[in-house]
Amino acid sequence: MCQLLAMSANTPTDIQFSFAALRLRGGQVGPHRDGFGLGLFRSQGLMCFHDDLPASESEIAHLLQHLPLKAMVAIGHIRQANVGEVNLANTHPFVREWQGRQWCFAHNGQLTGAGELARGHFVPVGTTDSEQAFCWLMSRLKALPELNKLNIWHEIQYACQHLAAMGVFNMMLSNGEDLFVFCGSKLHYLVRQAPFGKASLLDCDLQIDFKQHTTINDRVAIMATEPLTQDESWHAMQPGCLQWWRQGQLIQEVVLPLAM
Amino acid sequence: MCQLLAMSANTPTDIQFSFAALRLRGGQVGPHRDGFGLGLFRSQGLMCFHDDLPASESEIAHLLQHLPLKAMVAIGHIRQANVGEVNLANTHPFVREWQGRQWCFAHNGQLTGAGELARGHFVPVGTTDSEQAFCWLMSRLKALPELNKLNIWHEIQYACQHLAAMGVFNMMLSNGEDLFVFCGSKLHYLVRQAPFGKASLLDCDLQIDFKQHTTINDRVAIMATEPLTQDESWHAMQPGCLQWWRQGQLIQEVVLPLAM
Repeated sequence: MCQLLAMSANTPTDIQFSFAALRLRGGQVGPHRDGFGLGLFRSQGLMCFHDDLPASESEIAHLLQHLPLKAMVAIGHIRQANVGEVNLANTHPFVREWQGRQWCFAHNGQLTGAGELARGHFVPVGTTDSEQAFCWLMSRLKALPELNKLNIWHEIQYACQHLAAMGVFNMMLSNGEDLFVFCGSKLHYLVRQAPFGKASLLDCDLQIDFKQHTTINDRVAIMATEPLTQDESWHAMQPGCLQWWRQGQLIQEVVLPLAM
Repeated sequence: MCQLLAMSANTPTDIQFSFAALRLRGGQVGPHRDGFGLGLFRSQGLMCFHDDLPASESEIAHLLQHLPLKAMVAIGHIRQANVGEVNLANTHPFVREWQGRQWCFAHNGQLTGAGELARGHFVPVGTTDSEQAFCWLMSRLKALPELNKLNIWHEIQYACQHLAAMGVFNMMLSNGEDLFVFCGSKLHYLVRQAPFGKASLLDCDLQIDFKQHTTINDRVAIMATEPLTQDESWHAMQPGCLQWWRQGQLIQEVVLPLAM
């Protein structure tokens, strides 16, 4: 199993603090040694970093922890391989362009029968069930006869429900503006906004006073497989819950019935 | 105008030495301050780094210069913007998945009328003429009624000729195995193989003795807008020349007539 991290913010925000926790779980305090990735959106541009080394040992991850790269949306992933060997092509997040936007996707879980998902326009590069699911989802979106935000939202609901029925499916998906987060079994989130306080990471002795780094209008939502800090109120998402975030704001939320 | 760098090797090879030269030209000894990118293929996996800062100042570029990341194919770019503002979405190389392979592209030059190139399956994310040309080229490849290496080779010839007639078009394109290099106006290349010697960068006091880093079977081709070293034999490519490289070996070469 892997771990996920995401951010949706209304102002360019660095994810160093949260990434520091994820990084430790990537091979030091957690077993997710099989590579890591971090995608950072600035407007429509995407910086996407991948390494097949453990995040805790990767020089690229070390840089990302210490460099204040600002983004409006971030998606991070540390991998503990179950389907597909450990290599770069199997490292999340996966990216595809659709309609002139980069779509960035990361998955936690495993799916049975992902190889039988219908082939569409987008084709996996690696051999993971995750990338197969992503390509299937994106191919379905591309095949929609009519396009609007509501269509897309309903198609993502359908896809999440379908994929969740195939095993364990927690995912994060973004085009740099919208962030879709689905909890098939386990995900947590919180929103940081004024009045800002202090927080300490659970996995190491690292603290931050958000007041020093924010303005009163800032709003930042963070999602993670497991809570990252000990002195903030993390919400456990209900299995089946799909959220649509934009600029740190929850736009829509629905709880989909899951097959038992 | 921008500068290009590429590598095709028959063994995983780091590009630190050549990238050190490109990096200096990215804002220190050269005017290409408007971002940089470097794509590194390992088998079908791709690490692709982008920054909208000058390569000479970017912390990401600093890491890439000092971290021996091995790759079989590399494509690098430093940007001096002419079409499209300076931002992440406009930073080369551009990447699209086609047929389950990542295709990575960088361009040097400028094109008149790129906005009128027919829209196909792939759509630009940013606003550069370069990405428009790349999406057009990839859409043409995707639309080929039959697929084989020879078809693809001829379609790339057609596309290069067509794009070169629209302005200045030097490009590098790879799927991680094949590397296509087109010289519309200026490109240089060399092949490093046994007996390996020493080389010094033209732009700074940095030397390398390749004998210390290679085996007798290694073969590495390097392409660059301008020669990078002073004690090696760089070949100037003829305008109109399209090369197809694989594992450091020139597979095919053709000189296409260019419109005057």
